[in-house]
Parts: sequence; C-alpha cells; structure tokens
Amino acid sequence: MVMPMLDDVLYYIEANVENSLSDLKEVLRFPSVAAKGEHMKETAQWVADHLEPLGLKVTLHKTAGPPVVTGILDVGAKRTLLFYDHYDVQPAEPFDLWDSPPFEPTVRDGRLYARGVADNKGDTVSRIWALKAFLETETVLPVNIKFVVEGGEEVGSPDMPEFAKKNKDFLKADGGIWEFGGAGIDGKQEAWLGLKGLLYVQLEVERLKMDAHSAYACILPSAPYQLVWALNSMKDRNGRILIDGFYDDLQPLTDAELKAIAKVDIHKSDVKDHYGIQAYLNDLKDEELKEAYYNAPTCNIAGIGSGWQGMGSKTVLPAKAMAKVDFRLVEDMNPDDIAKKLRKHLDSNGFEDVKMVSSDGYPPGKVPVDHPFVDVVNRANKIVFGHDIVVHPTSPGSGPLYLFTDSVPMVSIGVGDFESRAHSPNESIVIDNYRLAMKRIAVVIDEMSRW
Amino acid sequence: MVMPMLDDVLYYIEANVENSLSDLKEVLRFPSVAAKGEHMKETAQWVADHLEPLGLKVTLHKTAGPPVVTGILDVGAKRTLLFYDHYDVQPAEPFDLWDSPPFEPTVRDGRLYARGVADNKGDTVSRIWALKAFLETETVLPVNIKFVVEGGEEVGSPDMPEFAKKNKDFLKADGGIWEFGGAGIDGKQEAWLGLKGLLYVQLEVERLKMDAHSAYACILPSAPYQLVWALNSMKDRNGRILIDGFYDDLQPLTDAELKAIAKVDIHKSDVKDHYGIQAYLNDLKDEELKEAYYNAPTCNIAGIGSGWQGMGSKTVLPAKAMAKVDFRLVEDMNPDDIAKKLRKHLDSNGFEDVKMVSSDGYPPGKVPVDHPFVDVVNRANKIVFGHDIVVHPTSPGSGPLYLFTDSVPMVSIGVGDFESRAHSPNESIVIDNYRLAMKRIAVVIDEMSRW
Repeated sequence: MVMPMLDDVLYYIEANVENSLSDLKEVLRFPSVAAKGEHMKETAQWVADHLEPLGLKVTLHKTAGPPVVTGILDVGAKRTLLFYDHYDVQPAEPFDLWDSPPFEPTVRDGRLYARGVADNKGDTVSRIWALKAFLETETVLPVNIKFVVEGGEEVGSPDMPEFAKKNKDFLKADGGIWEFGGAGIDGKQEAWLGLKGLLYVQLEVERLKMDAHSAYACILPSAPYQLVWALNSMKDRNGRILIDGFYDDLQPLTDAELKAIAKVDIHKSDVKDHYGIQAYLNDLKDEELKEAYYNAPTCNIAGIGSGWQGMGSKTVLPAKAMAKVDFRLVEDMNPDDIAKKLRKHLDSNGFEDVKMVSSDGYPPGKVPVDHPFVDVVNRANKIVFGHDIVVHPTSPGSGPLYLFTDSVPMVSIGVGDFESRAHSPNESIVIDNYRLAMKRIAVVIDEMSRW
Repeated sequence: MVMPMLDDVLYYIEANVENSLSDLKEVLRFPSVAAKGEHMKETAQWVADHLEPLGLKVTLHKTAGPPVVTGILDVGAKRTLLFYDHYDVQPAEPFDLWDSPPFEPTVRDGRLYARGVADNKGDTVSRIWALKAFLETETVLPVNIKFVVEGGEEVGSPDMPEFAKKNKDFLKADGGIWEFGGAGIDGKQEAWLGLKGLLYVQLEVERLKMDAHSAYACILPSAPYQLVWALNSMKDRNGRILIDGFYDDLQPLTDAELKAIAKVDIHKSDVKDHYGIQAYLNDLKDEELKEAYYNAPTCNIAGIGSGWQGMGSKTVLPAKAMAKVDFRLVEDMNPDDIAKKLRKHLDSNGFEDVKMVSSDGYPPGKVPVDHPFVDVVNRANKIVFGHDIVVHPTSPGSGPLYLFTDSVPMVSIGVGDFESRAHSPNESIVIDNYRLAMKRIAVVIDEMSRW
C-alpha cells in the first residue's frame, strides 16, 4: 500500500526523530507568551529560519502585534496543502505547579514536557520535518505547500482578520491542516472539522460612586444584585437562553453530520468521572448529549466579581459588579449580531445600566464531513495509526478557523493526547505520538496527490 | 442650671484636654487590630491600668479571644451608669492611603488622625477622663460606674455572648452609653437607640471537581449560574425578599418612633450626592425613605466571586462560585430563624447544592425612644452642645447591643462626626468635639443623679 518512495520518507522520519526533537526543544526554550508579548520576533525568526532551507519563499508579515510567518513552496502540483500553526504559547503560571521548568524541555517516561509542546510547537516542528523528509530523501513532493504561522493565537488572533483580508489568495488551498489535535481518551486519533464561534463580553454595573456600608442596603441600589438579575434574565434554569432572537440562525446538524457523530464515542462516563458529576447538564443523554456537544450554543459565566471575596465577613454594599460572559456560537450565528441582540435584551428589560465594556469574538467555521480532503486525512491516519480517524464535525472550542474555511477545507489533527494539559502546568506530548503524527503528515502529502 | 460642683468638673476637663489627649495618643499607638490578634493583651492592660487608679475594681476576663476588661466603682448611689467600649480597631490597610501613619497619632487643622480614634478609643478615653474629673476635683460621684471594654468588636464580638451569660448581674444598670456616635452631616449631635440585627452567610456552590474549558458549557453544569439563580430566587427586582416567612416577625415602627423620626433630617440630598445616585432604592421618598432606613430588613450581596476576574478574556467554566450575603434584621427578627428559613428556601427551590458554609449574626436590639434615660442624655447634650440631640430609634448598622438591652437602656453617643472615616484610611475626630463629648459624659453623670 505504501509507495516505495514514500517508504524512504517514512524511513527518514523514523531515523531522525531525535534530530527533529532537538529542533523542537530549541523552539520550546523561547518563552513566546503572547499575553506578555515577549520573545515574539525571535521565535518568528526561528520559524522563518527553519522553513527557508526547505526551499519555501518565506515572508514575515508586519502586523499591529507579532509578525505572521508565511512560507510557500510551489512545485507546480495540482493540489496545494496549507498548514496553519502558531508560534506563541499560553502563560506558564503558576510555575510552582510544574514538575520541571516550563521553558526547559524535559523528557520523562516517554513524554516531552514544556509549555507549548502540545499547543502547538510540537505540531509545527513535526510538519516542518515531514516536509523536510521529502526534500532530504529527494522524493518528489507531490503537492504545493503553504505555511501560515501566527504569533497571537493564544490571545484571540487579533491580527488575523486583517492578515486574511490582505492575503486572500495565499489562503487558497485544496486542503489544510489546522493547529491542534491528537488522541482522545481511548487513545484513538481524532480529527476536528470545525470550531464553534465565540462572543466574549464583559458586563459591568456601577450603581454608586463608592462602596457603602451594607447597612445602607435598605435605601441604596445594589450593583451586584442588578448584575445577578441581568444574568438571570439571560438564561433560565433549563439552560434556555432568553435573549430575543438568539436561536434565529441556529442550523440543525446535517444528516451527514448526524451519521458521523453516531460513530463517535464521546466517553460519557470518563468525562463524568473526570469532572465528578452525577449527570450532564439537564440530564442530557446519548444522542441528545452528542448533539448538544457539537451543536448547542451556550451562555456561560466565565467570571463574576464584586465586593468582599476574602476571609471572614465584611459588610459592604459594593458600588460595582463585573461579569465575563462567553457565548459559543454555531452555524450560522454571528458574534456581532448576538452582541447587538444582547444589548437590546438588556435595554428592553431595564438593564440599561449594565454596560458591555468589551465584546469580541469569532464566527463559527466548519468543513463538511463528506469533503474529499477529510477522506485523504482518514486514509493517511489508517496507514500510520491503523484505524479510522474519529471525525468530530466540530470542536466545542473556538478559534479563527472561519477566516480560512471559505478558501480551504481545514482539518485539525495533531501530536497531542488526552493527557496533554494544553494551557495548564505540565503540558506534554507522548514522543511516540509525535513520531507517528509526523509520519501521518507525510502520508497526507502523498495521499493528496492521488485525490 | 449647672451646679457649682459640676462647674469644677467641667473646668477640670477644660484645663486637662491636652493631658487626656496625651493618654489617648498613647493608646492609639497600640495597633490592636482584632482581625490580626496583635497587641491585644497590652492594650487591655493599658485600659485596666487607667481604670484602676480611679478606684474601680478592675477584672480582666479570660475569653477564647482577647480579654474583656471590666471595672466597677460602687459608691452606693441610687443609679448606675454603664459604658460599653472596645479597645480593638479595624485593620488600617491600605496604608498608602493614609496621609500620616495610622498608628502615629497626628494633629492637623484641629483634627486628630489615627486608626481607632473615632471607633472607639477616643470615646473610651473621654469617658475615663470624665470620671477622673469627678475624682480629681473631689466632687461627689452621684452614680455608680461600670465599664465593659472588649477586644473583639471589630470581628463581630465572638466572645461577648458567653461573657454576657456569665456576667448577667454585672450588665445591670440604669443607663448605658454605647460605643460610637457623634455629629451628623449638619454638625448636630446624634443619639442612636438601637442597632439592626445581622445574619451573615457565605454561600458556596461546587458543581465540578475542577474548572473546565468553557467549550464544555454545552454539556456541563455551571456553578456561577446556579448561584446567580439562587440569589435571584431570594430577592426580586423590587427589593422584595422572597424567602418564605422572612417578614413574619417584622414589627412596624411604634407611634413614638414615628413621631421621633418625623423630627429627624436624614439629609437626603447630601447622601444622594455622596453616593452619586439619581434616586434612592425603588425611588423611596420622604417618610417611606425614613421608614426603610430605620425599619427595613435587607438581603445584600456583600461579595460574589467565581472564575476569571483578571484582565482580558479567559474562557473557563468555573467549578465553584461563592457569595457573601448579609441580612439586616429588625425587631423581632432572629438570625437563627432567618438562617433556617433561608436553608429551607434553597432546598425547596432546587438549590440543595448551594451550601451555607458559614452563618453568623446578631439579633436586633433597641431602647424605647420615650425611655427616661434618653431624656437624661438629651438634657446633658443641650447643656453642653446647646441643642436637642437628634434621636435615631435605631442605627441601620449592627452590633452586640442585644446582649445589653435586656439589662440596661443603651444610648449611643460619641466623639465622632460625619467626616470621621471609621474603618477607612485617615480616620479622625475633631478635637473640639472630643472636648465637648467628654463634658457631656460628665453632665450625663450629673443629670442621672436627678432622674
């Protein structure tokens, strides 16, 4: 099944795992924390310096924030494969919960530990080395290659909308590999075909010029209670979101998607155990639970704060209250539209004083489950990992995928696994998964030429 | 009107203001912050050392916390006057907002600045020196004197219920002067005849074993939303408290109280300006506003917290949420009873998982506005300050007054004023008010002998 020339490529990858890991460790040592804006230029340069020798035409695109690195290798092939990655990472705090320093890559029991190794420097380096394997073995590269590696993913990709607008043509490709992914809780490889949209708003109420003694609660208005009433008005206890028109653009899952998710095991009991719950939200079960997972929009309190939160009892009537609320959106919902509907909801329910001080988000993005590129990825997975890839029509998470999906069918696969702890202390990958994921990229390149 | 012998006492006070202030500065230098439990014993000893030379029989009562200092001087008079004070103070943080160090008493523009000067070391020392004036001038002391000076008032007087139980007889007196008070916003002296009761509860909800990515809000339950729904169920947007039976024991103000408050100016516009509000709660006006001030129970969110409250947008589904809620109670409401009703309310409305992890409070306490001791205080005030004292049937605040009101009619007057900033940085008193308040105590002693 594996063509002779591909064999050379796979052999090369096998023989160079340590060399690629040494590259990976090098880039992991840059604490390229987007939230702090540190070490961004040198990390972008590292990416450029590792794409250029492979013959790619590399550009560092200036943005308001860190540069976007692009690379293109046009071999005149029929198909083009695009990689979307990011060289920035989440903050590593709290440092004391790490068993080894977050920016000092360390191997323990077959896992490589470091901030960003799963999300997503491990992916980036594995993709660079998969391509390198073709070039080093002088194997004919059967597809054109494009890389888009940004530096602001972990802070919401603020520069990507403008970049995407300016570089419309560059984003055109026949297939794309999105940044993250890997093995599920059962060890099976997974592919994510979409991301939910996101609207993130910060609500603030100020009803007094300064905090008052709580004795005055008998005659003065309360900011935290006003916020509680506003949040209560937004969602009922059955989880129904009460904002007028919120569900107007909600599309049900297609038959193809329903068929796809029927095959997915979402490991109900494991997730229950993990979070220590007796039942899912609203006692959701079986297919309903799956449909909610893939297609339910949400209204979630990510944070709320007012008044005295320390030890003991302070009797205060707080002047201000704040809540951070995030909405997950599914096709065809739009964050700007939902933000407007939320404002209207607050105004028409007597919550004019509940201000939306910030509001940001992404629309959802999704690739059809029956797209031929999904099949290409599955064939590659089967060759390398020996099983059909688990297809999720969408991830319940969010990202700037929508900027790409108009021009390229994007599938998210990667080097991570269920224990990878992206965004948390002791982030890690299984080195063996990394090796196989690198091979899978090579086989995707190969399979794409036969599509 | 002033008897010759009282004149000697008042002259002595006048001549010794600086000496009494030097005592006051001495005790202000002890950072006797009850919340930190520091310097309690030496401050208690200071009080004992300043009562004993006046001929009082002084006892330091051991408690679970700092000692309660009592002193008694029984001259065989018909009437007994009792002082309730406390030698502990609020924390002084944040230090950087003080214009002079909080435990280094400093005079500026006729005011004395230090933590605890208004609440209530200034009162304590003024009362000691008023008594001293009788003794030093060899004026016949016409009443028996008792002092109760505790060290835990600023942390809710946890040891006072047991102390009061053990020392029932000691608390018996014909009149009592409570710890705090002074001039209102218009400069007129005020007397407070009661305190509202308090129930302080900490509510906590935990719905997950650990925080989840907010993408999971589509299938996992939310602790902060459960808390929002619970708080919403407790009070409606008109301020009506919805806990079953909450208002059962509420007593309307008596005719005498209504008559008394008709005379009070609560300085509606000044308070409005102070807090920057357009209207009071529920647009309360005039007599309704006053009745709420003196007699409305409350349900107030003193603090609420869950999830991410820092800068920017973290997409988290928080595992836990917490709220601190305080209820002000009026006669004949009882904190234990209200705590039980709250638990029942939560249980019968599907909020069994909202735990009351702590619950504490005081019943209300009040002295009738037509009690003859109130008239004694008013006569003394008129002699010293030249005007009728403003009588508040109760303060909207709370304290352990209820422990005393069965055995002694307690009236709260003191050395403070509207700008005293008790519990805040730059706490201070007007030295001239201090001088007059000291004289007023002397005249109360004198007037009491004619009751």
